[in-house]
Amino acid sequence: MEERRFHVAVVGATGAVGQQMVQTLENRNFPVGKLTLLSSERSAGKKMRFRGEEIEVQVATPESFAGVDIALFSAGGAVSKALAPEAVKRGAIVIDNTSAFRMDENVPLVVPEVNEQDLTWHNGIIANPNCSTIQMVVALEPIRQAFGLKRVIVSTYQAVSGAGAQAIEELKTQSKAVLNGESVTSEILPVKSDRKHYQIAFNAIPQIDKFQENGFTFEEMKMINETKKIMHMPELQVAATCVRIPVVSGHSESVYIEIEKDGVSADDIKAVLKEAPGVVLQDQPSEQVYPMPVDCVGKYDVFVGRIRKDLDNDRAFHLWIVADNLLKGAASNSVQIAESLLKLGLVK
Amino acid sequence: MEERRFHVAVVGATGAVGQQMVQTLENRNFPVGKLTLLSSERSAGKKMRFRGEEIEVQVATPESFAGVDIALFSAGGAVSKALAPEAVKRGAIVIDNTSAFRMDENVPLVVPEVNEQDLTWHNGIIANPNCSTIQMVVALEPIRQAFGLKRVIVSTYQAVSGAGAQAIEELKTQSKAVLNGESVTSEILPVKSDRKHYQIAFNAIPQIDKFQENGFTFEEMKMINETKKIMHMPELQVAATCVRIPVVSGHSESVYIEIEKDGVSADDIKAVLKEAPGVVLQDQPSEQVYPMPVDCVGKYDVFVGRIRKDLDNDRAFHLWIVADNLLKGAASNSVQIAESLLKLGLVK
Repeated sequence: MEERRFHVAVVGATGAVGQQMVQTLENRNFPVGKLTLLSSERSAGKKMRFRGEEIEVQVATPESFAGVDIALFSAGGAVSKALAPEAVKRGAIVIDNTSAFRMDENVPLVVPEVNEQDLTWHNGIIANPNCSTIQMVVALEPIRQAFGLKRVIVSTYQAVSGAGAQAIEELKTQSKAVLNGESVTSEILPVKSDRKHYQIAFNAIPQIDKFQENGFTFEEMKMINETKKIMHMPELQVAATCVRIPVVSGHSESVYIEIEKDGVSADDIKAVLKEAPGVVLQDQPSEQVYPMPVDCVGKYDVFVGRIRKDLDNDRAFHLWIVADNLLKGAASNSVQIAESLLKLGLVK
Repeated sequence: MEERRFHVAVVGATGAVGQQMVQTLENRNFPVGKLTLLSSERSAGKKMRFRGEEIEVQVATPESFAGVDIALFSAGGAVSKALAPEAVKRGAIVIDNTSAFRMDENVPLVVPEVNEQDLTWHNGIIANPNCSTIQMVVALEPIRQAFGLKRVIVSTYQAVSGAGAQAIEELKTQSKAVLNGESVTSEILPVKSDRKHYQIAFNAIPQIDKFQENGFTFEEMKMINETKKIMHMPELQVAATCVRIPVVSGHSESVYIEIEKDGVSADDIKAVLKEAPGVVLQDQPSEQVYPMPVDCVGKYDVFVGRIRKDLDNDRAFHLWIVADNLLKGAASNSVQIAESLLKLGLVK
């Protein structure tokens, strides 16, 4: 019997995440029968390689989705809001990497290692969580299963690629200028559409996405709300401080957790993470082994180290969690969702 | 009446911190009568400017301290252990920037804004705390005074200058190599004397100083133990995760605190910090105003922003604390200690 192959569309194909989506479909050998690459008018006409063939990028319109089985969206919330329902109307399943539908109660928010079963109740659109949320829940879910989970306090060290290709370019241009003793111009970070822009080269900016009324940024609220939704734990206490640092790719997180169970050791946590799906344990302090962003680039896993028990609270632990924000934080999680849909027989 | 002037020595004068000490003595107009600059044999003979004059750096020996009133040490723990007692024997008061004597119960560990009165019981040596500790306690002490303090969880974003001039050079050299697509060599960071060295350019390294048996690094244990000692709170719960990021100067800290008092608002915390000595409040989310390391360089203050109440715990708050690690974290805190000694009439 011949394996079924699928018509896949990538919306926002020329962006930092879109490029990784195309690459991930190829690298993970996803059963693509036809690949349609879509973008705004600005990028249409560009050519991208997929399995040795050149594919021309087309302008995304409602009609682009005729015959498409699975559409991966990563072109910004406005594009998703306008075109995802059009894709669904034409029979496609949408896997959306923007924040447009994530907190919609009719839309499952999925990290396959954590809540693959939520795919069964989808209504055409499946949301891919925020990058910094994904890598955290992949590490926290196995701990929750084994020992319960009560509280999470996270401080992030986020790479500029999370803000797109222009932000990567800005970091590089600014870094060169600083090293040459030249003045620096800032136009993209921390948030392109916000009013003020600051230097990211050799700096740390404690703002990712816009500020909300409560003093938290939208990125911080995404981590808080999405974690509760993905883990089915509305009662989980989550706090986040999100910071951009001058790293190209690879988000790092300093995570404090409180578990439910007494008498658990750091070794117990390590033993659980060693067997956890999608997790690579990198934790040998005596050998200076711990995860770092430059080492995670190009990999699909979530790397965890620096696991140690809090000195004051027997139920509290500290972890350091690192992953490629363009892959596990975006492109590869989206493709994994597509793989799970196939596995569960959910693609008509 | 003529103002008394003092014979000051700087040990480790050519290092990243030593240079700032000399500059700070000049900038803060400390009443220096004579300045003796000391170093290892390697750097002896170099000339440094102070108030328009050139002073030759001499090899530090026990005899160097004859006639010295105040000796500022920043040449590593081994040098302090060997020479600080010699300086004291010769009548000098030592202000030591290394970790050699910090936890010695006969040595006060002082941040003038917090525990200036501890200077009164010194026995010749006064310890200057770890850089990341100083800036944190300057912000926490006024909060403790107003509302009590029960718990602190901090994740740091530390600049390479904390590891000395060679680390600054390494960051710059590596950054250039990465931008030019060349390979990178690592010899200094995370810890020069440790076995493995890693790239810091466009990376984050979750190790500062060496690992201890309990899985925490020595830097993390410094923050934990020194905070308790400076604040006279052995019962304070403190946890730290210390991370090096590719910033030249300026340490940042994401700090979670739990206070004792009920019903305190973020505005109450801001009001207290606005009046606190050594603190500059930079906290207007609607205007994208928050502290950043590039903005704090060259300044003596501690900058605090992103102050917000935890969403789950009425007594918990989040803060973002930034300061120049070479100044408030080292050189200017040392000079401030010297100023406090004069003010309190403690220099014979």
